Amino acid sequence: MPNSSHRSGAARFLAEVVLTCDKAFAVIEGGAVDVGDDGRIAWVGPAADAPVTEAPVIDMGGLLMPGLVNTHAHTPMTLVRGAGDGLPLMAWLTEVMWPREGRLRPEDVWWGMTLGSVEMLRSGVTTTCEMYAYEHDVIDAGRAAGIRLVMCPGVLSIAHADSSASVAGRIAEIAAVHAAEHDPEGRTTIGFAPHSAYDLGIEACAEIAVAARELDALLHIHVAETADEGEALSAAHGGTSVPRLLAEAGALDGRVLAAHGVWLDDDDLDIYAANGVAVAHCPVSNMKLGSGVARVPEMIERGITVSLATDGPASNDDLDMWEEIKIASLLARVTALDPTVMSAQQAISMATRGGAEALGLQIGALETGRWADMIRLDIDDVAFVPVTSPQELIAHVAWAGGSRHVTDVWVGGERVVAGRVCLTVDESRTRYEVQRRAQRLARESGT
Amino acid sequence: MPNSSHRSGAARFLAEVVLTCDKAFAVIEGGAVDVGDDGRIAWVGPAADAPVTEAPVIDMGGLLMPGLVNTHAHTPMTLVRGAGDGLPLMAWLTEVMWPREGRLRPEDVWWGMTLGSVEMLRSGVTTTCEMYAYEHDVIDAGRAAGIRLVMCPGVLSIAHADSSASVAGRIAEIAAVHAAEHDPEGRTTIGFAPHSAYDLGIEACAEIAVAARELDALLHIHVAETADEGEALSAAHGGTSVPRLLAEAGALDGRVLAAHGVWLDDDDLDIYAANGVAVAHCPVSNMKLGSGVARVPEMIERGITVSLATDGPASNDDLDMWEEIKIASLLARVTALDPTVMSAQQAISMATRGGAEALGLQIGALETGRWADMIRLDIDDVAFVPVTSPQELIAHVAWAGGSRHVTDVWVGGERVVAGRVCLTVDESRTRYEVQRRAQRLARESGT
Repeated sequence: MPNSSHRSGAARFLAEVVLTCDKAFAVIEGGAVDVGDDGRIAWVGPAADAPVTEAPVIDMGGLLMPGLVNTHAHTPMTLVRGAGDGLPLMAWLTEVMWPREGRLRPEDVWWGMTLGSVEMLRSGVTTTCEMYAYEHDVIDAGRAAGIRLVMCPGVLSIAHADSSASVAGRIAEIAAVHAAEHDPEGRTTIGFAPHSAYDLGIEACAEIAVAARELDALLHIHVAETADEGEALSAAHGGTSVPRLLAEAGALDGRVLAAHGVWLDDDDLDIYAANGVAVAHCPVSNMKLGSGVARVPEMIERGITVSLATDGPASNDDLDMWEEIKIASLLARVTALDPTVMSAQQAISMATRGGAEALGLQIGALETGRWADMIRLDIDDVAFVPVTSPQELIAHVAWAGGSRHVTDVWVGGERVVAGRVCLTVDESRTRYEVQRRAQRLARESGT
Repeated sequence: MPNSSHRSGAARFLAEVVLTCDKAFAVIEGGAVDVGDDGRIAWVGPAADAPVTEAPVIDMGGLLMPGLVNTHAHTPMTLVRGAGDGLPLMAWLTEVMWPREGRLRPEDVWWGMTLGSVEMLRSGVTTTCEMYAYEHDVIDAGRAAGIRLVMCPGVLSIAHADSSASVAGRIAEIAAVHAAEHDPEGRTTIGFAPHSAYDLGIEACAEIAVAARELDALLHIHVAETADEGEALSAAHGGTSVPRLLAEAGALDGRVLAAHGVWLDDDDLDIYAANGVAVAHCPVSNMKLGSGVARVPEMIERGITVSLATDGPASNDDLDMWEEIKIASLLARVTALDPTVMSAQQAISMATRGGAEALGLQIGALETGRWADMIRLDIDDVAFVPVTSPQELIAHVAWAGGSRHVTDVWVGGERVVAGRVCLTVDESRTRYEVQRRAQRLARESGT
């Protein structure tokens, strides 16, 4: 595969419009973004006010904005995209998904992650937070593709069914991955991903949380995705809710990113707020699987950090964060029966700076000092016409913007997509490999 | 503008896959579609079984399927796309929308309709059902763009506030438009569009329905979009629901297409079923405006024809039927908390043959005798990988398919989009015209 370790070097990028996604949500017409040799943003503002530079000046036209941040994905599941579509949940899992996934080989995972990374990069996603096994292959594929990666190796009870000691073994494995691969200045950070409290139990989750905290690593976990998943656990603990059980066990004391959060009551939301738990909101997945509606406006009201995510491609079935932006807002509005809930700006913020906060990374806004994770949109498109105010432009980005508008993508200042072509991956080869491997999985599993 | 009245002539189109959207939802690998000189489909099936032909054989590769059918739009509102985004509903209407729309000139409407037609054609929409005023300009623009048009000139109380006779006058106007422009063998048909019962009253709706029925024309009307819109009317008639009032007045006796249908109870649904009322379901608009969730699975259960629609671009804010396909299914599933509700196939059907049924046109499926309204998708895309069964391909079209995949479009056998370029409209000029006219509307209205 092509080597993606080079940086593009310092440059000034000019654009028709810079959508900073900073706190003030500044929209700069005739804007400039200076990127330093270190891959960080050195200056942002109106081109007319930009400091003298000796760096190359590249006029991109169009709209520059931060790359989108996908905070919860199982990207190698591109290998099972669309399989068993429309089946009831348990039949889908037990009759199709698990039989196919059970036959995965490490190199399948590598190609599946590569395919998904191209899909994300080309659609403007510059960072993905992955909860999956086969972490070495996922890290290797993500690095080769040049996507910024938060890898959270999964801990699942079925993988450690023989003894409780094996959870400790898995923790040691993940700690070793952290020691070898965690690189906050690079593009790879490592977290811990206990699948869920209902799968592992509270004690194991707390044990994993201690390990994560010792390394100041992210704890990434599924919480309250479906209505009944926590019932047994809760009943075994006198009806106490799963979030409260996790909090009481100290599992929420560190940096925690909880996916879904569909079935949380007021008390659970207060626990999230008090513990600084961030949420990976997955509206498309929650809708497609019929899971329910997360109470996002109430989360935001309490100051909880809410980010957006696609979940795995098997429950979506694409990795398109533009859909999450639009649908997050649509879902919140129809749930509240109120068109003033979740503005275009809020939805875009969740997909950019919200994701950065959730992951603890200096990304998600075009601001001095943050990584130059940046995308260019072609706004010479019918869906972006007309514009009579900056507010309308923001509306178009949220409501009409889509992966088709993304033409160029930089991660840490390195150009990884140019003119809609991914520079880091051989896309045709990747499609071929995933296709033939998926056919093998279908054949071997008889599904 | 380029003349779009020519036909491309008879041809055989070959494709990797033909998604017929016929009743059996046949997926034909290595398929052929024969189009006759008359612009209708002459034969569909596996290329290997195709009859001998002297027509040119064009191997398109990719996937051929029927064009999407948008059954409820106010397309010239591209001119106010994104304006006042995020305001409460009444402030949005009274402070931004109406002041801008009130300053529309006929040539503005022509350009707005042209812009929206390009947007739709390029994204694979081959038919649109328009509820709007300025019908001559909408028809003229739609014809020039080459889109199949069901034009339903609107009847609004504010336009006829001075006397009840003026509704009769408007009916006569629409009947004259019907006499001059209705052309079922061409691409333009004419219907009648009373805005709503709450706006016009039951009597006027019934009067318009009589006129429509005399011409066997479609009656297109807003019903039950918001929770409270019918309250006053209902209260004035002893609490009888608006659908029942319309039915009792005979307003539902003809061919009726009712948009939205969000707030219908069981009795109302039974009335729709008994009267053969078709529904234009607008999930994105209903969500964005916080209107509510139409009971689509219950409609389908009763045998009601349900089609999909974008509504106007001011409440969406694009005209992308792929979003309606995906979101219709997502919304139905999360409402039912059941992932088996509304399959990929059902959602695609609503956007194709459902639309055809709702409009009474021979379109919406690649079947012998229907119009060759057809689109080609580029499926050499990461989001369409892998495919291990025809069912997975259908899933990808519904869940991952988007306007970006549409490369070529035919209406009645005429190619109107080739290689993603609209052949019938000067797109740059159109963007320029809509932009400057929208700026004038903003300036003149002080909004």
